[in-house]
Order: sequence, then C-alpha cells, then structure tokens
Amino acid sequence: MSLLLAMTGWHVEDWRERFQALLPEMPIVTLGEAYDRRAVHYVASWKHPEGSLSGLPNLAAIFSLGAGVDHLFADTRLPEVPIARVVDPDLTTRMSEYIVLHCLMHLRQQRRYERQQQAKLWDDDRNQPAARSVRVGLMGLGELGLDAARKLQVMGFDVTGWSRSPKTVDGFATFAGDEGMTGFLARTDILVSLLPLTPETRGVINAQMLSGLAQDGRLGGPFLINAGRGGLQVEADILAALDAGTLKGATLDVFESEPLAPESRLWSHPDVTVTPHNAAMSEPEAVATLISAQIKRLEAGEPLEHVVDPARGY
Amino acid sequence: MSLLLAMTGWHVEDWRERFQALLPEMPIVTLGEAYDRRAVHYVASWKHPEGSLSGLPNLAAIFSLGAGVDHLFADTRLPEVPIARVVDPDLTTRMSEYIVLHCLMHLRQQRRYERQQQAKLWDDDRNQPAARSVRVGLMGLGELGLDAARKLQVMGFDVTGWSRSPKTVDGFATFAGDEGMTGFLARTDILVSLLPLTPETRGVINAQMLSGLAQDGRLGGPFLINAGRGGLQVEADILAALDAGTLKGATLDVFESEPLAPESRLWSHPDVTVTPHNAAMSEPEAVATLISAQIKRLEAGEPLEHVVDPARGY
Ligand SMILES: NC(=O)c1ccc[n+]([C@@H]2O[C@H](COP(=O)([O-])OP(=O)(O)OC[C@H]3O[C@@H](n4cnc5c(N)ncnc54)[C@H](OP(=O)(O)O)[C@@H]3O)[C@@H](O)[C@H]2O)c1
Ligand SMILES: NC(=O)c1ccc[n+]([C@@H]2O[C@H](COP(=O)([O-])OP(=O)(O)OC[C@H]3O[C@@H](n4cnc5c(N)ncnc54)[C@H](OP(=O)(O)O)[C@@H]3O)[C@@H](O)[C@H]2O)c1
Repeated sequence: MSLLLAMTGWHVEDWRERFQALLPEMPIVTLGEAYDRRAVHYVASWKHPEGSLSGLPNLAAIFSLGAGVDHLFADTRLPEVPIARVVDPDLTTRMSEYIVLHCLMHLRQQRRYERQQQAKLWDDDRNQPAARSVRVGLMGLGELGLDAARKLQVMGFDVTGWSRSPKTVDGFATFAGDEGMTGFLARTDILVSLLPLTPETRGVINAQMLSGLAQDGRLGGPFLINAGRGGLQVEADILAALDAGTLKGATLDVFESEPLAPESRLWSHPDVTVTPHNAAMSEPEAVATLISAQIKRLEAGEPLEHVVDPARGY
Repeated sequence: MSLLLAMTGWHVEDWRERFQALLPEMPIVTLGEAYDRRAVHYVASWKHPEGSLSGLPNLAAIFSLGAGVDHLFADTRLPEVPIARVVDPDLTTRMSEYIVLHCLMHLRQQRRYERQQQAKLWDDDRNQPAARSVRVGLMGLGELGLDAARKLQVMGFDVTGWSRSPKTVDGFATFAGDEGMTGFLARTDILVSLLPLTPETRGVINAQMLSGLAQDGRLGGPFLINAGRGGLQVEADILAALDAGTLKGATLDVFESEPLAPESRLWSHPDVTVTPHNAAMSEPEAVATLISAQIKRLEAGEPLEHVVDPARGY
C-alpha cells in the first residue's frame, strides 16, 4: 500500500521527505516515477495534472494539500473516492491576521496617512469613525470566516455574515442564500470574501454584487477584501466600480489568474492593495502531519475528518 | 459657581456649547473674557497657558480634556486641587485598533508587500512567522495597555508587559520597574509604548533601551510603536538605531515636538510610519459628557473618579 504525491508548482522531493519521516513504513511514490498503480491507496494532491489520478483501482482517499479543494474538482476525471481537505488551526489564525489587518487599514485610513507622510502633511481627523460604526460583512462562515468574525468583533467591528445554509451564530446576525444577499450587502461597508470556489460561487463578486453594497456608511463608500479564490471575482467589474467611485478600495490576495499578470491595472491602481496569494499559508510540516494523522485514522478503521462534498464542491 | 474652560489650540466656543447643553444651570467662562475668579469651582483644561489657573481661591477640581495629564503638570504654578483625567472606553477601543493594526503590519510585512506591488513583483513568503512566534512587549499596563494586550493576545501574539508597580495579569507575564527592564526588553520583538509622560518616563525610549531589544526574533529585528507621548522618545536615537539596522522599523504617532517639523528625517525614512497624533481621539461630545458627569458627582457629594497622583505625575 502506497501514498502517491501528485503536485505541480511545489518541490515534490521536500514533501516526500516530510511524509516519509512521519510515515516511515509507507512506500511513497511520485507522478514522475514508475510505480505500481494497484498499490496506491492514498493520494496527496496540490493541482495534480488533469487525469493523473485515474486508473488507481485501490484508491481509498484523496487529500488536498491545501485548505481549498477547487484544484481537485477542476479535474473532470477525478476518481470518486472520499476527499479530505486540510483544516489547520495555524492557517486559520493567519487568515484572521490578514482579515483583521486589512479591515483595520481601511477603518484607520492607513493609505491616507501614508500619502500624508509622503507629502510631510500633518493632518489628523477628528471624524475618524470607531470600529463599532463600521459594518463588516463576511461571505463564508466556515472554518476561516467564523474565526475572522470573532476577532473582528473583539476589535469592535459591527459584523454580519452570509453563507449557503442558514446559521445561528452567537453574537451577530447572519444571512443565507440568494434570498439573504440583498439585505446582507445593503448593510455592508467592508465586504470580506472567504468563500470556496465552486460552480455556484464562480464570478459572484461582480458588478451586480458590488452595486448592492452600502453607500451610506461611515467610511465614505464600501471596501472589498477577497482572500477566498480569484475565480470568485470579476476583475473588470472591480476596476469599473473603483473607477466609478462606487467601490472605495479593494484588497486582493487572489486573482483570476495567478501570478497576477504585469499588465493588470490592479497592480498600479491607487485604491488597490495586492498581496501574492499568501493571506494564509500552512507550514508544510503542519500539513504533512495533519494528512499523516488522517492516514493513520483510516488504517485504524476510524472515519476520515474534514471530508468535502463533491456535490457542493467544498 | 462656574466652570472655566482653559485651552489652547482648540475652539473654545464649541466646547462652551457642548458643556452648556450638558450643564444648563452652570455659568461657563473662558480664559479670554472677564470673569469672577472667586466663582470658578471647576476647570476643564487642554494645554492651558502657564499660570493661567492660579488665583482661583474656590477651585475644587481640574479636569483634563484628554487622557494624558502631562500638559497639566507642565504648569509649574498648577493649583493644588484634585485633578481628574478622561477615561473613555471609546478612546481605549480606538487605541487598541491602532496598536493591533501596526503590530499586524509589522508581523505581516505589509511594507514589503507594498514595495513589491509598486514593482509588480509577485513573491510570497513561505517563512511568514505566525503571531504566536512574535513577542510583543507593552510598556504601560494601564487603561490603554491592558486593553491592547488582551486584543493582541486574541490575535495570537505572544504578549508581555512592563509597568511601574508589579502586576499580576491573567494570561501573560509582566515585568516591573528598573529591575524588570532588561528581561522585558530581551524578549521583545515589537516594543509598544503606552506610557504616560512623567519626569520618570521622559526620554526612556533612547539608545540604551533600544539596544536591549531582542535581535534573535522571527521578524529579523525589533520594531518600535510609540503612541504614548513624544517626550518619551529620543528621536535622534531612534534614527540612529534604524540606520544601524538594530531597529527594523518604527511606527510613531507622537513626537518630541508636534506637529512634526518638515525637516525631520522621520517623515522620509523608509522604515518609519508617521501618524499625526491621532492613534486615539475622544469624540468631544463623549469628553464633555464624562466631565459633566464628574461635576455632577462632586455636586452630589460623591467622590471624583480617575483622579491622578501629582507625585507620580499620572
Ligand atoms: N488566500 C489564502 O491564502 C487562502 C488560504 C486558505 C483558504 N483559502 C480559501 O478560503 C476558502 C474557505 O475556507 P474555509 O476553511 O473557511 O471553508 P469552509 O469551512 O468549507 O467554509 C466555506 C463557507 O462558505 C460558504 N459557502 C460555500 N458555498 C456558498 C454559496 N454558494 N453561497 C454562500 N455561501 C457559500 C459555506 O456555507 P455553509 O456554512 O452554509 O456550508 C461556508 O460557510 C477555501 O475554500 C479557500 O479557497 C484561501
Ligand atoms: N496617541 C494618542 O492618541 C493617545 C491617546 C490617549 C492617551 N495617550 C497616552 O497614553 C498614556 C497612557 O494612558 P492610560 O490611560 O493607559 O494611562 P494609565 O491608566 O495611567 O496607565 C499608565 C501605565 O503606565 C505605567 N507607568 C507609569 N509610569 C511608569 C514608569 N515610570 N515606569 C513604568 N511604568 C510606568 C503605569 O504603571 P502602574 O500600572 O504601575 O501604575 C500604568 O501601567 C496617556 O498618559 C497618554 O499620554 C495617547
């Protein structure tokens, strides 16, 4: 029985070493080498090449090496076996660092004060709104969204959330589904996206969504923060809303195509903050440890954790 | 019995209106006009001119219009009556917004990613330290320091504190006095100053203190955030430490002289963030309400709250 490492863009040999140290008895194979396809019981994947996981007759589970699984479902020939993703408390903490940082930058007009510093201009703002008068709307109330929501509340923000299924969350109002969208957007000054990329969510951050955001808030216009996936957003619509002034600023960690192309106007737009898809990374050690623990669970006859639903796509 | 408003730099007529609305029966006078000095029972001051409060035989209390009282003790002829300062939960929340924002900017290398964005450079960092591996040392564990500490802990930072008198605070280690300073600095990656300005604290953020900061931390060198008072810092020493590379960056909201002079190198130093002494402002309405409530307490024979100790200077 073996573990197949199937990835593109990452150093597979580093991962082999990590997994081998954690699973000393387990034969570990990689896509590039010759291996017995019948022996492969487990796959750990990050953006494996289309079709490269078919023809594995004894495959028992696929593990995503990241929190998102959209890279798996992008493969139309993905085997129909249980799929588990990584849920890493450390990654969750990092994502909340990112979300709180960028919400505070918008709240505290950090860009304005940077421009003032460049101009050696001393000009305070006696009308600085307090966090409690700024409404943050979180799209996605999963592992990441709920942690970010709690921390934003501790900082004083007025938080609400939106998810697919209706939710009761202590301490803040939530909205769900298409029915809930209009009400949710209308009371959102900072829209934070922590959605997974699925057929339903592709392109949702578009002109229609942006035009629904609150224009009457204390920040003088709405802001967008997307740290989910680039496929959620229509970049042309974001730029158009920024140019029209109906969107006051955007912080984007993810892009329709990554790395972001040099010719994209997002790089140089004065109201856009670009980060290179690193809002929240897992330490490779932590990921290997979590997946190895899952393999040991299976071997011990225990159920897999953090299984995703192929029908929902997350 | 009257309330004297004694301030420089602020619009006294706005304050008169605010106080009059809250204390409709109280005669309110200002420094510029003729008034009966024997009738003055209360003073509300923000940087009153030296000596302008002497010769008020029936003065019962002085109220600082801000959280700090160093502006009062700067007057060598200050009457010896009880002095109360403003403790405003809203101001505390805003200060914590500022401290958490700037700690996160240092943790998440926001300046680096801004430079990368300007250069259209897509370069992530797989060694991004987590908040738990970054040690924030808070100088000052009063109203402001304790709230910031708690919120930094929620964000995951490894927090300690330093104060004049020894303290036991749930959940983190504290150091006190001169004896505690060396140990405190040695385990500090981000030094946050929320000290009041007193004869003891003047100039403490100097070459000696900066040279004691941890050089072995995960951020590649220590950072300074001063949002207490400018008189705490020796700006020449901060610049020298930045130039020598023993200090990696500084975020300063307060300065030896304010507004910061155009010729100061702090404005243009690439590792310095300047904000115009607005880390935490009170809404004038809130300040007037809090002071009016204190006056009503006195009139009802109840004790003053938030009285400062002239011997300590805070
Ligand atoms: N930028 C980065 O560095 C980075 C790092 C890690 C992860 N991510 C991204 O973050 C995403 C979220 O991670 P997570 O762990 O929080 O996922 P999760 O626990 O699966 O939560 C997903 C949330 O999105 C909601 N959702 C899904 N489809 C929806 C739809 N059609 N309409 C409304 N709500 C919908 C879900 O609603 P229900 O609660 O009703 O199910 C759930 O609340 C990942 O999928 C990944 O793409 C980015
Ligand atoms: N930048 C802004 O916008 C802004 C806004 C508001 C306030 N501030 C500044 O923030 C300061 C702190 O406010 P606060 O409300 O937190 O004050 P506070 O409640 O009086 O607390 C002061 C803290 O500093 C400590 N301290 C005082 N002298 C010390 C010394 N010599 N050595 C070590 N520790 C010492 C005190 O120690 P003990 O606990 O042992 O007494 C206490 O923990 C104010 O004085 C003001 O200057 C700045």
